[in-house]
Amino acid sequence: MGITILRLGHRIIRDQRITTHVALTARAFGADRVIISGEKDDGVVHSVAGVCEEFGGDFAIEYAKDWRAIIKEWKGLVVHLTMYGMQFNEVIQEIRAHEKHGEILAVVGGSKVPPEVYDWADYNVAIGNQPHSEVAAVAVFLREIIDEEEVERKFKDAKKTIVPSPKGKKVVEH
Amino acid sequence: MGITILRLGHRIIRDQRITTHVALTARAFGADRVIISGEKDDGVVHSVAGVCEEFGGDFAIEYAKDWRAIIKEWKGLVVHLTMYGMQFNEVIQEIRAHEKHGEILAVVGGSKVPPEVYDWADYNVAIGNQPHSEVAAVAVFLREIIDEEEVERKFKDAKKTIVPSPKGKKVVEH
Repeated sequence: MGITILRLGHRIIRDQRITTHVALTARAFGADRVIISGEKDDGVVHSVAGVCEEFGGDFAIEYAKDWRAIIKEWKGLVVHLTMYGMQFNEVIQEIRAHEKHGEILAVVGGSKVPPEVYDWADYNVAIGNQPHSEVAAVAVFLREIIDEEEVERKFKDAKKTIVPSPKGKKVVEH
Repeated sequence: MGITILRLGHRIIRDQRITTHVALTARAFGADRVIISGEKDDGVVHSVAGVCEEFGGDFAIEYAKDWRAIIKEWKGLVVHLTMYGMQFNEVIQEIRAHEKHGEILAVVGGSKVPPEVYDWADYNVAIGNQPHSEVAAVAVFLREIIDEEEVERKFKDAKKTIVPSPKGKKVVEH
């Protein structure tokens, strides 16, 4: 049905680029929406909205002050991506099955994730139990849950399309 | 045989966290080494070296001033990860076959990638032809080239190991 990424604990300046990368990765790998929590940062929202405008699709970026309400009131599955969680391979089939008929909220930290996130999540999932990156976690998670053909179909009404090329840059403007 | 990630055009302060995430992602998904080019930044090198020390393995992080020499003198395959490249699915089998018997250098930008990188690379490869993140590109590339069992074996002599857990954090100290 669809996947929303909830990015917790955003801090202006320090997290600006990582959060932007989380959002662009969410879009590129087929999520419907990213919700940013923490400090309100119009810069990130505008820069991601600009990419959406240029490269097409209906991806939404929103800011929410009350992330607790979003998790607690979520009507579908809540998956917390954390290096402490269960191995992705063990739960991927269940999550994939859910994606066919319900909404998924995938939650990523933030420097310090409050303990209730671990409790409220239906699944705490590790993409490898090593420290790495919320950007990497979002990419791998989405890539394994959403079919590539489904992702490709999302980028409608683009002003620019990149044409795959063995050398150099080919961009078509519409 | 092994994969080295070359990160081009690092800028102190602005790229510090993205480059750190590139390096940690490279390590977590099974690369042997990251080489950082651009501005010399001991902070990134130390913080990644600290994670390696704690969580084990032989991952190396290095700084190189002359990235041109590294690409030109590379004895194996050079793969440039760029949103303008050929679709990953079309070349993945060839790259995977190469990985069994030779070294791979995977190159990621940097804000502006000089045109010669496109020319010198054996493959310019896009993980989806949408703008996203060099962190995401490194994660997906490595995950599809290196077997997970092989990755797991790399983290020897760790001082800390995370134990996969459905709730909360379990860490074993050795």
